Order: sequence, then C-alpha cells, then structure tokens
Amino acid sequence: MPEYLDRINSPADLKKLSPEQLPDLAAEIRETLLIRLMTTGGHAGPNLGMVEATIALHYVFDSPKDQFVFDVSHQCYVHKMLTGRRDGFTDPARYGAYSGYTNPKESEHDIFTVGHTATAISLATGLAMARDLKGESNNVVAIVGDGSMSGGEAFEGLNNASMLGSNFILLFNDNGIAIAPNHGGMYRNFSRLRETNGLEECNFFRSFGMDYLYVPNGNDVLALVEAFRAVKDTKLPVVVHIHTEKGKGLPWNKENMEGTHFVMPGLAPLDDFMSQYPSCGAMMAEHLLEKIKADPTIMVLSPATPGQSMLLPEFREKAGKQFLDVGIAEQHAVAVAAGLASSGAKPVLCIVASFMQRAFDQLLLNLSLDKSPAIILVSNATINPGDATHCGIYDIAMTSPIPNLICLAPATVEEYLAMFDWALEQVEAPVMIREPGMLISAGRNIAFTDADVGKYEITERGSKVALLGLGNFYHRAAQVKALLKEKAGVDATLINPRTWSALDEGTLEKLKAAHTVVVTLEDGVVTGGFGQRVASFYGPSAMKVLNYGAAKEFRDRVPVEEQYLRDRLTPEQITEDILCCLQ
Amino acid sequence: MPEYLDRINSPADLKKLSPEQLPDLAAEIRETLLIRLMTTGGHAGPNLGMVEATIALHYVFDSPKDQFVFDVSHQCYVHKMLTGRRDGFTDPARYGAYSGYTNPKESEHDIFTVGHTATAISLATGLAMARDLKGESNNVVAIVGDGSMSGGEAFEGLNNASMLGSNFILLFNDNGIAIAPNHGGMYRNFSRLRETNGLEECNFFRSFGMDYLYVPNGNDVLALVEAFRAVKDTKLPVVVHIHTEKGKGLPWNKENMEGTHFVMPGLAPLDDFMSQYPSCGAMMAEHLLEKIKADPTIMVLSPATPGQSMLLPEFREKAGKQFLDVGIAEQHAVAVAAGLASSGAKPVLCIVASFMQRAFDQLLLNLSLDKSPAIILVSNATINPGDATHCGIYDIAMTSPIPNLICLAPATVEEYLAMFDWALEQVEAPVMIREPGMLISAGRNIAFTDADVGKYEITERGSKVALLGLGNFYHRAAQVKALLKEKAGVDATLINPRTWSALDEGTLEKLKAAHTVVVTLEDGVVTGGFGQRVASFYGPSAMKVLNYGAAKEFRDRVPVEEQYLRDRLTPEQITEDILCCLQ
Repeated sequence: MPEYLDRINSPADLKKLSPEQLPDLAAEIRETLLIRLMTTGGHAGPNLGMVEATIALHYVFDSPKDQFVFDVSHQCYVHKMLTGRRDGFTDPARYGAYSGYTNPKESEHDIFTVGHTATAISLATGLAMARDLKGESNNVVAIVGDGSMSGGEAFEGLNNASMLGSNFILLFNDNGIAIAPNHGGMYRNFSRLRETNGLEECNFFRSFGMDYLYVPNGNDVLALVEAFRAVKDTKLPVVVHIHTEKGKGLPWNKENMEGTHFVMPGLAPLDDFMSQYPSCGAMMAEHLLEKIKADPTIMVLSPATPGQSMLLPEFREKAGKQFLDVGIAEQHAVAVAAGLASSGAKPVLCIVASFMQRAFDQLLLNLSLDKSPAIILVSNATINPGDATHCGIYDIAMTSPIPNLICLAPATVEEYLAMFDWALEQVEAPVMIREPGMLISAGRNIAFTDADVGKYEITERGSKVALLGLGNFYHRAAQVKALLKEKAGVDATLINPRTWSALDEGTLEKLKAAHTVVVTLEDGVVTGGFGQRVASFYGPSAMKVLNYGAAKEFRDRVPVEEQYLRDRLTPEQITEDILCCLQ
Repeated sequence: MPEYLDRINSPADLKKLSPEQLPDLAAEIRETLLIRLMTTGGHAGPNLGMVEATIALHYVFDSPKDQFVFDVSHQCYVHKMLTGRRDGFTDPARYGAYSGYTNPKESEHDIFTVGHTATAISLATGLAMARDLKGESNNVVAIVGDGSMSGGEAFEGLNNASMLGSNFILLFNDNGIAIAPNHGGMYRNFSRLRETNGLEECNFFRSFGMDYLYVPNGNDVLALVEAFRAVKDTKLPVVVHIHTEKGKGLPWNKENMEGTHFVMPGLAPLDDFMSQYPSCGAMMAEHLLEKIKADPTIMVLSPATPGQSMLLPEFREKAGKQFLDVGIAEQHAVAVAAGLASSGAKPVLCIVASFMQRAFDQLLLNLSLDKSPAIILVSNATINPGDATHCGIYDIAMTSPIPNLICLAPATVEEYLAMFDWALEQVEAPVMIREPGMLISAGRNIAFTDADVGKYEITERGSKVALLGLGNFYHRAAQVKALLKEKAGVDATLINPRTWSALDEGTLEKLKAAHTVVVTLEDGVVTGGFGQRVASFYGPSAMKVLNYGAAKEFRDRVPVEEQYLRDRLTPEQITEDILCCLQ
C-alpha cells in the first residue's frame, strides 16, 4: 500500500512530507503508474520520466497560485495524482475518471486544455503578462519536453518570453527523445549542454538572453527541489534544463526508447501492438517501400509522428535516406515538401489530421499557389472517441476553400493505393489523400486515372434519392441505400464522390432528371465541408438536399456510436429523414 | 543614363563587369529604384538595403542553376532588374509589368511565389534535399531578413537545414528592424553579434551547428563578393550574416526607419499617408486608446503589423505597456492572447486576415476549446486588388468550422465599435470581429448586447426575396434591394446577419412564410463560407438559395471591380439572377 501517496489530497499535503521522504513517494508513484499503465496503457514515457520533477514542482511552488503550464500535457499524470485526482490512478474503478491531458474542468490546478505540442511557452507568457498587468507576483512555470521544442510556436514563445522583465520559469525536460528520435540541429546543442554539465558557452537558451540552470540528474528529486528553490520568485526569465530518463521504471525502455512513449495494456509498445493488425496505413507503408525502391527521388516525410502513419521503425530502416522525420514542425513539413516538389523530387508527407491544422497557410501559399505536386497522406481523419484536441474532423472543411489543391477521399484501401499511384505520376498539382478511417477492401482492383479527377463515381444507378458518401462514409451511404429499399422500396442512386476539392457539376446536374433528394455524408464537421457546397449548388433548383456530418462542437472522449446518434448519422436516422423528405 | 545597368539583360551580363565596376552599378541601381519608388511607391526599405547583396549574389553564383529563395520576396526588385526584367524599373510605361514578389511565371530565376514571411529556409531546404536525391551539385541560397526570423516556420526550417550534410547557404540580412521595430530575445543576440563583429561565443546560429560568417558592412559590394566566394560550393550549411542599412539612399531613413519599409508615391512613408485618411482601423485605434486608459488589464497585441491595423507609432507611444508587438509570430500571438484571457486580462489581437491563416490550430485549440475571452480584430479581410499571397478572402471559411468562437461582421464603423464594446465586457467566449473593408457610417448610434449574439438583424421587411449581406456586403445587398424594386417592383427583405459563426435558425425559419428566394452575399471565398451554410439549412425545404462571394481561385493583382464582374457580384448581376430565379 502506498504509505505517502494515500495521504496526499492536495499539494498542501505533499508539503507536509520532509525532503527525505520524497524519494519514497516517488517510488510509490512510479509503482502506481506502472500498475495502472499495465491495465489501461497510456503515455508511459513522458510520465515515468517526470515523476520526480512533478513532485518537486508541487513541493516548492504553490499551485494554483503559482501556475504550471504543461506542454502537450501528456506528462500530467503525476500532477493529477498530487492535485486531488489520485483515485484515477489508484482505484481501478476510477481509471477512466480523468482525461490524459490537463483540463480546467477537472481542477483549478489545470489552466488549459491542451494536447498539441509547443504551445506552453506562449500560453505561459500570456499568464505572466496578465500577472504583471494586474500587479500580482506569482510564479509562472512552463513545462516543456525536448521533442516539443522543435515546433515553431515554441520558438516564437521563447523569443517573446525572454523579453519579459519579470518572473518566468521554463522547465525544460530533456530526455533526448521525442515520440520518435529527435531530429534537428538544436538537439546537438542540447546534447552538448548535457555533455558539458550545462557549461557549453554557445547555449541555445542563453542566445535569447535567458538565465540558465542545468540539473544533470532530472530524476533526483532532492536536486530538483534545490534547483526549483533557487529559481522560485526569480525576477527574470530563466530556463531550468533537467536531464531525465524517459520511461524510467519500464523494464525495457533502454532497448526501445520510442516504444516507451505510449504503451498499450500490458505495457506493450504501441508500435508492436499496431504492427499486428492490418490497416490502410500499414498497407500504404508497404506500398511506399516498393515505390521508394523504384524511384530514388521519392522522399517520405513525417512531422514527428511516423508511428501514427504506420511508418514504423522497420519501414524507416528500409527507407533509409528516403525517409525524414522533420520534428514537430508541420509548417516546415509542408514547405519542405513544396521545395522538393518544385525541384522535381516526389515528396510524400504523412501527417495526422489534427496536426495538419498547424499548416493551413503553408498548404494555401507554399504548396497550392505554385501547384507544387507534393502528396499529402492524412491519417486519423475520422470521427473518433479521443480527446477534444485530437479530433480528426476539421481537415475537409479546412482545405475546402484552398484553390489548386486536389483533395481525394478513397472509400477502400484499393482505391487509396490507386489514387496514390496516380498522384505520384502526375506533376500538375498538390494532392491530398484522406486515408480511409477503417480498413475496407473493395475486393477487386481499382483504377484511378486523369479522367477520374473531379468526377464522382456512380456505383449504383437508381432514382428519387441520390446518396453521396464521401470516403469512409461511402459504406454508410450503401447501408442507407439498403434500408431505403427495405423500408420503402426506394432504389436510390449510390455515389462515391472521391473528391471534395471540386464539385462534379456535370453529374450533379444530371441527377436532377430522376431525383428529388440528394443526400451527402462526410466523416468530418459538416460546417464548411463537402456537403454544404453541394447544397449551395442545388440552392437555386427544386432539388432537396440533406447534409450529414459531425456537428460543430468540441467532444471529449465520446464513444463514436454515441456521436453518430447525436449527429443523426446512423443509417436508420438518415433513412428516416430521407423518407420524411420524400413525402 | 545608367551606363552599366543598361547592358545587363541577364546575370551573364553582370559577370562581364569587373569587381571595381560593381559599386557604380550599385549606385545606378539605387538611383533607378529611387526614381521608380518616387512614382509608384513600394517596398523601399528592403530593396534599397539589399542592392549590393543582390548584385554580389548574381555576380558570384550562377542563377538559375544556383537557386535563390527570397523570404517574403519583397526585397526582390534588384534581383528582377538583373534577371531580364530591368524594363519594369527603368521604363515608366512598364512599371506595372512585374509583381512586387518573386513569381515563377515571370522568370526561371524565380522559384516560388511567396509573400508571407519565414518560409524561405524550409523551401530552400526542400530544394537542397531534392538536389541531393538527384545527385546534383548546385548552391542553394535562402535570403532572409532579420524580421522574418521571428516566425516559427523560419526556426523549424533552421533546425532542419542545419542537419543537411550538404550545401546550404543562409544569407541573413540583418538591418536591425522588421516592418516595425524588432521585438524578441533573439534580437539581442543579433545585436551582440554585430557589436562583436560576429565573434560572440554564444551565437544563435552556431547553436544549431551551422557554420557562420559575419560581414560588418552589408552594403560593401566587394566585401560581399568576397564573402560569397568564400562560401560558394560549401559542403555544409553556413550562415552569412550581413549587416545592412535598411532603406539606404532614402533621405530620411535614419529618423523614421519604420517609414522606409513601404513608401507611397513621392516616397511618403505609408503611415503618414494612412494617417491622413479616416478609416475603420483609425477609429478603432482611437477607441482602443480610450478603453486602455480606463482599464489597465487591456493588452493590445500585433504580430509585427501594427501599421496595417492602424496602430501607428503615436498609438503605440500612448498605449505604452498596454501594447506589444510580438514579432512575426501569429501562432504565438493567438496563444499569448489565450493565456492573457484565461488569467482575466483583456487581450485585443489586431491581425491582418491573410496572416491569421498562420494560426488555424491555435484559434481552434488554444483559444476556442477553453473559450478564452480574447478579442481578435481582423483587418484587410475583403476582396482586394493585391497579390495572390495577400488575399483577404479566406478568414470566413477558415473560421466557420471552429466551435465556440463568436465571429462578428459589422456593416458600419458604429457597429464595429459597438460589437467591440460588447466583446470587451463579456467573458464567455473568444470573439473575432471582421473590420469592415470600407468606412461606412450608419449615421446613428448602434447598440450591440448579449441578446444580439447569434441573431440576424432584419433592417427592412419585405417579401418574396430575402437578402443577407454579411459585413461590408450588407451595403451591396441594399443596392440589390433598390434594383429589385426599380426593375421588378419587388420589395425584398434586407438583413444584416452580423455573424457567421452561428445560424439564426429562428429568423431563417420565419423567412419561409413570405419568401421563396434567400440570397447571401459575403466578402470572401464562397466555398465553405457563410452562405453555403444557409443553403444547407434550407436544403430540405422548398426555399431557393443563391450564394454570392469570391470564387475559389488565386487572383494576382486583379482590379476589384473586375473580380466582382467575374464572380457575378455586381448588384446588376445579382438582381438579374434573382429575377431569373423568381420566374
């Protein structure tokens, strides 16, 4: 039984411990984390590495008066354990009680809901500025991992935070690895700082004019307490650079650092787990390897999330110099793809939908304005049961207004590969392909050629009702078709639109002859998306249009089936609406 | 008559000059630039400062084999003069022949169409990677000003470029001022490097592992030739840091550095010109000053474009610590606003529409997810005759799918101020207000209260046709109303929708009773915008809907009236369509 942890219901309880008791508390917390991670999985690496630092933060500072901003916040488990949410980690019945990220709705100790990287310095700079405007005097601490430092927003924040003439503490948690191994010149400096015990003259942080303190053992809780006491109530911005061990306590972390980042139940590395199951991503990765062998100008890029695009270590090893992880740097990733494409190379950027949100301007101006023929493969673009910060529903609406960008949504894995093959051969425009959210086989070869661009595919001809199911949701449209037949004898036309960047006006026009209702379905937010454009096309006509997709609202860890119900996205609900509209 | 310049039709001609002749050529070019700027205005500061460096680049390197990527590219005039486009600068009849930015359609010496900052390092990294994949050996040179270095994408690029194990030259043009004075800790390092003749040990660029060379007089063409020769064909990434004089040759640049950036005809500083005319921005700036006096927690933020938001030097002086220019760092700007708002301060971020494109993810996740009550005032959000990179048409569509963000579009300056006053008092949600693209007075006081949020204002009740004119385009809708009456005796209903973030479903529903056609007008891209959502609402009904806005296509320097004609946005065209629809 955890002797110390059980007494801590708030940071005030932690402060009752003597410094000498803190290592024992750390051991208890690490064991508690391991037990929970064994059952539920989660962000093992970041949290196990930050056990001692989080204890020391709450021991020295006074949250919530002193403000902690966790970058990404996937390292906030220990913070939650120490701020009244211990039950979510010690009581198996409560394992699902709290989110895996900071959340102001849960606790006054959580200031922001975050989930994307590189934002903490900017957010904390805002807190410090507000404090100064109000004439208050608390400490503001931004807690940032080395992986997050490669994001441009972190740099913009650092450039500004360093100008604050007041209290600001950047706790830089350096374990030498991001989600995947770090890449970038800056990391050589961090490595050099670790080697010289922080004494290297050419210091990235000092070049901004920040004060700087190095703690060689970032898992030594007493050393951390001492360091934090030294900077507490500082009147000028300071960086505390601590060297921690990612995933400390996991039996195998030395051999598989990347595998420690997020584990599945049983502590299985996520990659090992994912590689067991066939998926569109895995099939694309295999396909990419074949293409790479045949063409040395193909360059596969990932902004620090190769695993989420199924570009697992084995892929990267085989791809060699034709794979590059650019770090958590989505803006750069899109621009570097534009540079590659404009010189005749063939960039393939594999990116997670919610992170692509970082690069709207680059998609518009770096890639699409010059029609640079880069390929972007977007994964996790689907209504999902995850955190609000990781919704995969905005990519269709976000890219809809971008000229020149060809956006394709395959319905099956065969169509996905066919579209990719077409995109790789053409040199006219950038092409984005939305990986199907589920692995469905067409059961046959699919062709995709120049003639198919911008053209909807009518897969089954009927009358009265036309169903346009984009990407994934083609199969949902097919289910609706079956229900319409079954319930009302209606033979609906079924269409795989395949694209959302252009309307196939010819096909839409022809539908007028034998149809009175057109229905669109898309696996993304309906506002600003594919379907509303179809509604606009039919606006001046007598055609009735029904648009289906996700509602415009944030959803945090809501089961997918429940979201479908709320959005009237079940085949039964859609069928009911259509029959009502036909009357 | 320019003796040397007239002989130069390509870089090959330049290379025929002896080094000793280059200073005379520089003098000719500077004089030519001044004569043209006197007539046409333009980016005086960046180009006049880069005269010698551009000559030296083309003298030493071999464009287009060697590749130059100009960041922002507002410093490309001399490059254009030396690459076959001299006539655009020497012949008044040809002054309008070329764009003010690089453009691959004009010349093989221009690789990218750019206009936003901080992209050159990433784009050039892509070129270098493509070169290496193809086994070629040219030089790649990214030319970046000090102002651009504050953008996160530049940093992401630097972090990656420094890892290239091959040729890459970053020409860092440091004149010590961006558009407005630079702000950020990094600039102290640049200053220190200038003071120490590049010898300071703690060197921002070297911290990435880049080689580094300093040229103290960046307007000494012979010193630059020598420096470029030293790095030509380098096998590793190198930074050439040159210290130039912005606006060199302008009579008054020492006194008004900011005024040199962009001048109007007669070399008048843009700010002086703009401050002469009343505008919505100017009236808001005055209003902000009053508010600031009354509330010390208001913080006005600008991402390096205060002038474009009419936050002129006089405003900044009066605002004191309640104004902050965060540098060209839009992502940070939005996040810092979120931080300020979450601590109870009142941030007002003044941002240009096309630059807000940099911060989609931050608007979504930093600001809107936590409903942080920051205010964003968006300027230049209108169909404009500018470069394709500076279109102000994407903001409505981009923000449409973002939950929680209240987006307001006032039709008059009084409404703009009233909406701002309301936004400043409320603490429920972030509010974005789209500055009217033209100064139109309502001629009366306007009130805006909680009860108005999400509600359309019916300004004139009629029947058959309802006209919804968003923001600016309310007045266009009023013109259509007058034409409908005149041409067909139709008394249309006129509506000021005031918002695009929510549909006023109650009002839309009621319109069904006496109307058969609903028309939407918006001053932005129609795809994914306000009108298509209205079309979707009426999709299942018998209501006919016509959506008007800008087409989804890039337009480069097309007169606004011509764009209106193309998009069928003239009141006559819209009236014609409506009458056709009524039949």
